[in-house]
Amino acid sequence: MQFHLNGFEPGDPDIADPVARVHGGGASGTVPAEVDVLIVGCGPAGLNLAAQLSAFPDIRTCIVEQKPGPLLLGQADGIACRTMEMFNAYGFAERVLREACWINETTFWKPDEQQREAIIRSGRVQDVEDGLSEMPHVVLNQARVHDFFLEMMQRSAAKSEPYYARKLTGLQVDPSAGTDDRAITVTLERCDAPHEGEVETVKARYVVGCDGARSTVRKSIGRELRGDSANHAWGVMDVLAVTDFPDVRFKSLIQSANDGSLLIIPREGGYLFRLYVEMAKLEVGERVAGRNMTADAVIAKAQRILKPYTLDVKEVPWWSVYEIGQRLCDKFDDVAEAEVETRLPRVFIAGDSCHTHSPKAGQGMNVSMQDTFNLGWKLASVLRKRAAPELLHSYSAERQAVASELIAFDREWAALLASAAKGADGFDPAKTQSYFVRSGRYTAGTATHYGPSIITGEASHQHLAPGFVIGTRFHSAPVIRLADAKPMHLGHVVKADGRWRIFMFAPAAEPAEAGASVRALCGFLAGDSSPIRKYTPDDADIDAVIDLRAVFPQQHRTLAIETMPSLLLPAKGKHALRDYEKMFCADPKADIFAMRGIDRAGCFVVVRPDQYVAHVLPLDGTAELAALFDCFMLPARRASHG
Amino acid sequence: MQFHLNGFEPGDPDIADPVARVHGGGASGTVPAEVDVLIVGCGPAGLNLAAQLSAFPDIRTCIVEQKPGPLLLGQADGIACRTMEMFNAYGFAERVLREACWINETTFWKPDEQQREAIIRSGRVQDVEDGLSEMPHVVLNQARVHDFFLEMMQRSAAKSEPYYARKLTGLQVDPSAGTDDRAITVTLERCDAPHEGEVETVKARYVVGCDGARSTVRKSIGRELRGDSANHAWGVMDVLAVTDFPDVRFKSLIQSANDGSLLIIPREGGYLFRLYVEMAKLEVGERVAGRNMTADAVIAKAQRILKPYTLDVKEVPWWSVYEIGQRLCDKFDDVAEAEVETRLPRVFIAGDSCHTHSPKAGQGMNVSMQDTFNLGWKLASVLRKRAAPELLHSYSAERQAVASELIAFDREWAALLASAAKGADGFDPAKTQSYFVRSGRYTAGTATHYGPSIITGEASHQHLAPGFVIGTRFHSAPVIRLADAKPMHLGHVVKADGRWRIFMFAPAAEPAEAGASVRALCGFLAGDSSPIRKYTPDDADIDAVIDLRAVFPQQHRTLAIETMPSLLLPAKGKHALRDYEKMFCADPKADIFAMRGIDRAGCFVVVRPDQYVAHVLPLDGTAELAALFDCFMLPARRASHG
Repeated sequence: MQFHLNGFEPGDPDIADPVARVHGGGASGTVPAEVDVLIVGCGPAGLNLAAQLSAFPDIRTCIVEQKPGPLLLGQADGIACRTMEMFNAYGFAERVLREACWINETTFWKPDEQQREAIIRSGRVQDVEDGLSEMPHVVLNQARVHDFFLEMMQRSAAKSEPYYARKLTGLQVDPSAGTDDRAITVTLERCDAPHEGEVETVKARYVVGCDGARSTVRKSIGRELRGDSANHAWGVMDVLAVTDFPDVRFKSLIQSANDGSLLIIPREGGYLFRLYVEMAKLEVGERVAGRNMTADAVIAKAQRILKPYTLDVKEVPWWSVYEIGQRLCDKFDDVAEAEVETRLPRVFIAGDSCHTHSPKAGQGMNVSMQDTFNLGWKLASVLRKRAAPELLHSYSAERQAVASELIAFDREWAALLASAAKGADGFDPAKTQSYFVRSGRYTAGTATHYGPSIITGEASHQHLAPGFVIGTRFHSAPVIRLADAKPMHLGHVVKADGRWRIFMFAPAAEPAEAGASVRALCGFLAGDSSPIRKYTPDDADIDAVIDLRAVFPQQHRTLAIETMPSLLLPAKGKHALRDYEKMFCADPKADIFAMRGIDRAGCFVVVRPDQYVAHVLPLDGTAELAALFDCFMLPARRASHG
Repeated sequence: MQFHLNGFEPGDPDIADPVARVHGGGASGTVPAEVDVLIVGCGPAGLNLAAQLSAFPDIRTCIVEQKPGPLLLGQADGIACRTMEMFNAYGFAERVLREACWINETTFWKPDEQQREAIIRSGRVQDVEDGLSEMPHVVLNQARVHDFFLEMMQRSAAKSEPYYARKLTGLQVDPSAGTDDRAITVTLERCDAPHEGEVETVKARYVVGCDGARSTVRKSIGRELRGDSANHAWGVMDVLAVTDFPDVRFKSLIQSANDGSLLIIPREGGYLFRLYVEMAKLEVGERVAGRNMTADAVIAKAQRILKPYTLDVKEVPWWSVYEIGQRLCDKFDDVAEAEVETRLPRVFIAGDSCHTHSPKAGQGMNVSMQDTFNLGWKLASVLRKRAAPELLHSYSAERQAVASELIAFDREWAALLASAAKGADGFDPAKTQSYFVRSGRYTAGTATHYGPSIITGEASHQHLAPGFVIGTRFHSAPVIRLADAKPMHLGHVVKADGRWRIFMFAPAAEPAEAGASVRALCGFLAGDSSPIRKYTPDDADIDAVIDLRAVFPQQHRTLAIETMPSLLLPAKGKHALRDYEKMFCADPKADIFAMRGIDRAGCFVVVRPDQYVAHVLPLDGTAELAALFDCFMLPARRASHG
């Protein structure tokens, strides 16, 4: 898709009318007085959570934002492979793939040894290593990412919309309230002209602060961002420009001899691109705002770095200056470390409100969305009485560790990019390129590795499936669906619907045989001791809580669907129709058993609702399988017993 | 995607609210008094044309429909590979791929020799041969296909919507009117309750009748559907049902010993499927309506054919009975064959209004849409003064030949499927399977081959690119885009935007060299004798009428974009931004030069706006290239001369 040729236009490029292209001004009327979850802040973290919760019409969610309407311009743009995998679970990956700019290769430029004031290309690498993800690394305006979430919310049963122009002025938690009470009282002040100063009060079970680096929610729970003070000022600018720099449609890292570093990010629509320009070293305690940097100064600096190439900027849809600073909260909820055993969390913070860093590794929007992708299913499980509220402790435990790694990574990356400023001998382009390649899995978002906990097992049986690393995201691979021979990606059955998945990788034996382990296992999983039965209400479909899928090593034409256990062809819904999408076979062109190193004896791979591998267990480990769910799940309220 | 589990629900499955899921009641107010194109009928042919024309805001299009609102249920469902390629040109292929059911394999069933009242599987074949198209064969409710077109229209600059509840009551052409006059006067009668009987008059330059087998437009131009009378009655039924027939998620052709044939088509959402059930032989002249067939009779017949398998139908969202009949018009416009040299067409017919046949080869909706995909760009070119109106004769010439082939194919296919009814010895399952495989390219829609005409060249240089057959659709293949190394399909640059494309396949010589033919050719195409210059208005982008693309045999990292001719990095739009999407390289994993047999000396492949190959020419055939466009194009009105 090509767009923005005759100037930047916000909104959906498929819609001609400039008014219809952008999302509307949000919900009218007053904020509901009582909700289950109040989300503060309409950035990627907040909207991701609101969109995820909108899939559950039984949960009352409200999202508020201080700004008067939806974001139209600027901010983040990087979408890592891992984020694309999450978008696929939401059902809009195809649309992002079509509209976004794909980052296929990254190039590196350095001063020409013969003529040091000119830059020359020093290297070129594939941006994402082969096989790391079925999804590419892409870039798209953060505003459009918001739009996809807003559209999901509108289309949901809840038809939810943000309440804009609401400033958080108070947040009190009643410590004496019971688990099911709406223990949090939030005060909001309206800041839209007709209602300026009007105060609204909301009672909520849970509050999630996605309200940015100056988070009021964070302050209200007494937490602080701690870390380095900034010492480098950067300019960031989206441009429509003419240049003879040949790599303007590649991600390009340019280190000049005397003028610092420049990062070029090509953008959606084929014409737009983004510049990150190293501007100046700041004094200790100095803020970039004090420098009064202008757009012209950012452009002039970029032009100097790019020499001998020219840069003729025609339009600047958005620009900003910022200082690098890596800051982090020590905990992402309202429970002190010492009280974890005795108190349950009710207030959470996510995204920039608990970790800030430089934007140049393209991590900010991605890590923020993964924060609330981690939190969303946990909140839903607790509110829907499927899981014990202790589960909620795992949010801060898992995500604070991830943010801490991010801060460390960003510090190293920012130092490398800024090192050119130290002088001609202070940097090594080969080192930059090598670091970029080594950190590829990290920047793709696939290196996140949650430690053992009540929802993530120990690696005791990891050898049964070394390609599905416990604690990392389920690494999808191709399969053929048995019932209709459709070639597809196994990971794409993991939707953002709050369900757990058990993938049963079958041994090579013919599953139709009387003594086949698949048959015995399905007998167990359909029987009285089954965790699936234990945690699924009688009146719900058998896959409503835990979704069992089987993967066979045989070619699909050799297996007979009519010989399979009925649990793999479950009867569902009011008509008891058969679900034919539970069984898969290896794709001979790309055998998932070989690609992920599945043991010939088979195994269970248990996958969390956020796509992370919770456990790998042997097929005879049914007791361990049951025990895993017993750690955090609540037995279903049986319909027959009210 | 899984949906319809708890009963069939019309509309967009991504939208929870049943009211918001379906499209609205169309345009309010009265039909405009003067239009460029009046389309009669909101089926696939009509909506495809309306959607295509909605891309041109300078063309005033109106579409009317006798029914009171959009289709919600039933009718056609087959979407051939070729149609998916067209959807891709419209920009909504990704969404159809996600929502539709993919037909991956087809199975064949016959009476068991041991027990003739039971059926057994006699064969299984891949549905579409490898490499035939980058798109799969899918099925999706016709109503949803309509929705995608309606959405395109809504999102277009014209924001067009159908006018429902309009019955065509009169159509007069003023034979004395000039070419540019609105020579056609159409009378419409409103049939919605509040406006019942109100008459509207529309003057149009062109009228296109997409108003089905009983077309009033066809009758108004004195044409008739001619052909066989029906002699077999069939039932067609969409069901939500439980069955132990193992191939219910495959397309299955079942021939029973004593009860005739059954065709099963799995459908979108994972639960729904369609049955085509052979019901009875009709007497000469007998209509199926006279038999008073019931849904229960259709189900009972299907149950008998399926034995020993059971079929427990839970819900029937839609069903119908029909008789097979193959009928065809001799010409698809209002100009008699003898008058082609002296009169210009003004009224056209498309789809069922000019060809009817059985639905079981899944061709109806596809061929109907290809009718108007052929007509749309021609009407747009003539109305926008880019082409001479004589171009419009080619619509009937090209599409009547295609329909005639379809009728012949359908007659043979219907006879094969019905042959079981002749008795136990009257059919041969192997023959059915073999015919199915042989006709695979035909049913995929890729066998359409337009003969030489003013817009399709002779095959004199076909040997330069045997894989791009002149007169057939441009067969896409993978490439790597030079400017950003994006792996993509070359055919996907052909959008439904009315533009012609010249693909310049370069010889192996380094293009940067002074004497390189690519350089010389771009010089010619940018110079005074260039057909591109001749037909492009001065104030339009250089690719606005004819879009030049270059494909190089080299690997993309070996070519330097900065050495390329400026015509391949054209300056466009108000900012004179560079378009970086004109150059491609062979993908080493799937070399387009090898796949399509491109001569080492290179060649031009000229592609029509409807994706058909107009010509293959040697790179030194610039005179022939210019002559091709001179046959039908009108030189641009230069801005400088008014």
